Amino acid sequence: MASANPLPDSLRESPFLKACRREPTDVTPIWLMRQAGRYMPEYREVRSKVSFLELCKDPALATEVTVTAAERLGVDAAILFADILLILEPLGFDLEFAKGEGPVIHNPIREAKDVDRVRRLAEVEPLGYVMRAVSAIRSALRPSTPLIGFAGAPFTLACYAIEGGGSRHYEKAKSFMYRDQGAWDALMSILVDATALYLNAQAAAGAQVLQLFDSWVGTLGPDDYRRYVQPHMKRLFDKLDPNTPSIHFGTDTSTLLELQRDAGGDVIGLDWRVDLGDGWDRLGPSVAVQGNLDPAVLFAPFPEVERRARCILDRAAGRPGHIFNLGHGIMPHTPVDHVLRLVELVHEYSRTGRPERP
Amino acid sequence: MASANPLPDSLRESPFLKACRREPTDVTPIWLMRQAGRYMPEYREVRSKVSFLELCKDPALATEVTVTAAERLGVDAAILFADILLILEPLGFDLEFAKGEGPVIHNPIREAKDVDRVRRLAEVEPLGYVMRAVSAIRSALRPSTPLIGFAGAPFTLACYAIEGGGSRHYEKAKSFMYRDQGAWDALMSILVDATALYLNAQAAAGAQVLQLFDSWVGTLGPDDYRRYVQPHMKRLFDKLDPNTPSIHFGTDTSTLLELQRDAGGDVIGLDWRVDLGDGWDRLGPSVAVQGNLDPAVLFAPFPEVERRARCILDRAAGRPGHIFNLGHGIMPHTPVDHVLRLVELVHEYSRTGRPERP
Repeated sequence: MASANPLPDSLRESPFLKACRREPTDVTPIWLMRQAGRYMPEYREVRSKVSFLELCKDPALATEVTVTAAERLGVDAAILFADILLILEPLGFDLEFAKGEGPVIHNPIREAKDVDRVRRLAEVEPLGYVMRAVSAIRSALRPSTPLIGFAGAPFTLACYAIEGGGSRHYEKAKSFMYRDQGAWDALMSILVDATALYLNAQAAAGAQVLQLFDSWVGTLGPDDYRRYVQPHMKRLFDKLDPNTPSIHFGTDTSTLLELQRDAGGDVIGLDWRVDLGDGWDRLGPSVAVQGNLDPAVLFAPFPEVERRARCILDRAAGRPGHIFNLGHGIMPHTPVDHVLRLVELVHEYSRTGRPERP
Repeated sequence: MASANPLPDSLRESPFLKACRREPTDVTPIWLMRQAGRYMPEYREVRSKVSFLELCKDPALATEVTVTAAERLGVDAAILFADILLILEPLGFDLEFAKGEGPVIHNPIREAKDVDRVRRLAEVEPLGYVMRAVSAIRSALRPSTPLIGFAGAPFTLACYAIEGGGSRHYEKAKSFMYRDQGAWDALMSILVDATALYLNAQAAAGAQVLQLFDSWVGTLGPDDYRRYVQPHMKRLFDKLDPNTPSIHFGTDTSTLLELQRDAGGDVIGLDWRVDLGDGWDRLGPSVAVQGNLDPAVLFAPFPEVERRARCILDRAAGRPGHIFNLGHGIMPHTPVDHVLRLVELVHEYSRTGRPERP
């Protein structure tokens, strides 16, 4: 595993990895979810030649878009270009990214007995193209830039597998969960095992940090999270390589934060619905936090972006362990210029301008 | 105004109106958002003959579906059958309910100058069909059953007017708001004035309670709510007939609850993401609360529905002022039988079974 090879100092002492370990940094590290995405002309240029799935499965192209985004933006970490749903293919799901419609799963789970046909991920080779991308990205990146590997969290994957695609109210997934907890737990267990194998393989291939995207878990209240999700998330975090810091991300999770922290993760993601200072107070000093600018703010005139970014930095001041990010992914029509200026601003203001220094 | 005529005792002392006033009741009142809706065969029968907008605009049919739902379910309040977007038509918006697509506004607001073409609602007559429905429903309902009138809250209406329909991330609405607060405030002011006129006319026509649906406001964090929404909501609540109790409803508002309470409303809606006891503790004893079963729970086997409904009632026990409801509207494929049994259960358990009596 990657952890067997100690990291070079330039990487280990990078602001991003220091913040993951809650060590003080000279500058607040920043990266942005979906930083390699449709808002960026270089990305659209690559995507004009291949489909989304082809891009995910071509390590050279995945490397190109990952590295281009990180270097162009000057962010403190790169994130593997991939999709949280790729893992569903080797589990037996027929996945398509339909034009303009988002992901579609043609053979979703509908009844308890459908869980029996979900395959276990015995070895990571069916996703070998991801590990090849991780290695290639690691080689192509500046040696001091950390690389984030990632996976979808089991709840969010289960929702996709049951809904068959995007959803507003998740009624199929919730009905399934409420109707038959045994079948739900069986499905979640398969997803936990597969995800742990997948993430640890990414770490072994060259990712320094692992992020779990539980993008949809905010549709649950605390009782449901405790019963249907938390035990599985605990088991998953327990299986992850302990030498690789992990980020536990969700949106709409303001009533779940403490439960997510107790499930695991060195860094907890906060979205913009939570005041970053309040959220961190609730989480306590045992975790770092990542967030939490509303991605829609990037459409505002830049002085307004600036005011809000400073406000977030002020709320984090004095506590080591803040990673600046958006509360969710960059949206497709976001002005590139604002993204570039945001990165500069976060670096500059956190280096020089904050009212209290850590 | 309706308040000039004192209510008959049977209505004034109904459990629903007592709960709105935070007076102890023998039984916890229950009604369900979208209780007259597609899940119900009687509703589908009416809808098979007319379009959605035709149904809204036909007082006799609106009365039929409103009263049928309330009586069939045995709930403690009826709610006017209408749509929150109807008010946009007299303001100059071209509204269509496209089949399978939800509402579409063909001439949305895109730039600040578009606000100039939004008409003021000088008199309520363009929405006279709603007031005729309210009067007809009031006459047709049992005299002891309160009738709820409602409107969309200005933020949610503004989102529709700017997005031109449903949205996932509200980036157009937020961009507009962030770009030009003057134009945003002008739009919100028009919506506040129109909504106050509209709601007070519903009260005068025979509604005993008024609910404001701020269904989408949970996309904002606390700072944005404070700056772009709260002053407008305060002004709106100040304009409402003080003798008619009001319900302030939103979803996904767990970080906004105190701000919503301070904006106004006798009853605050809670969705299932908040533990009802915790939410009420945060709101304090000055308001009643409404909620908060996840509508998806109605797809669970009934013992699970029962367990969760009891849990909510237990959390509310000992405090007068709880109105049982879902956290959002009933979903289209919900089993009618579960809805009927839920109403019975809430009545029976709150009358006899709670661990502590108020």
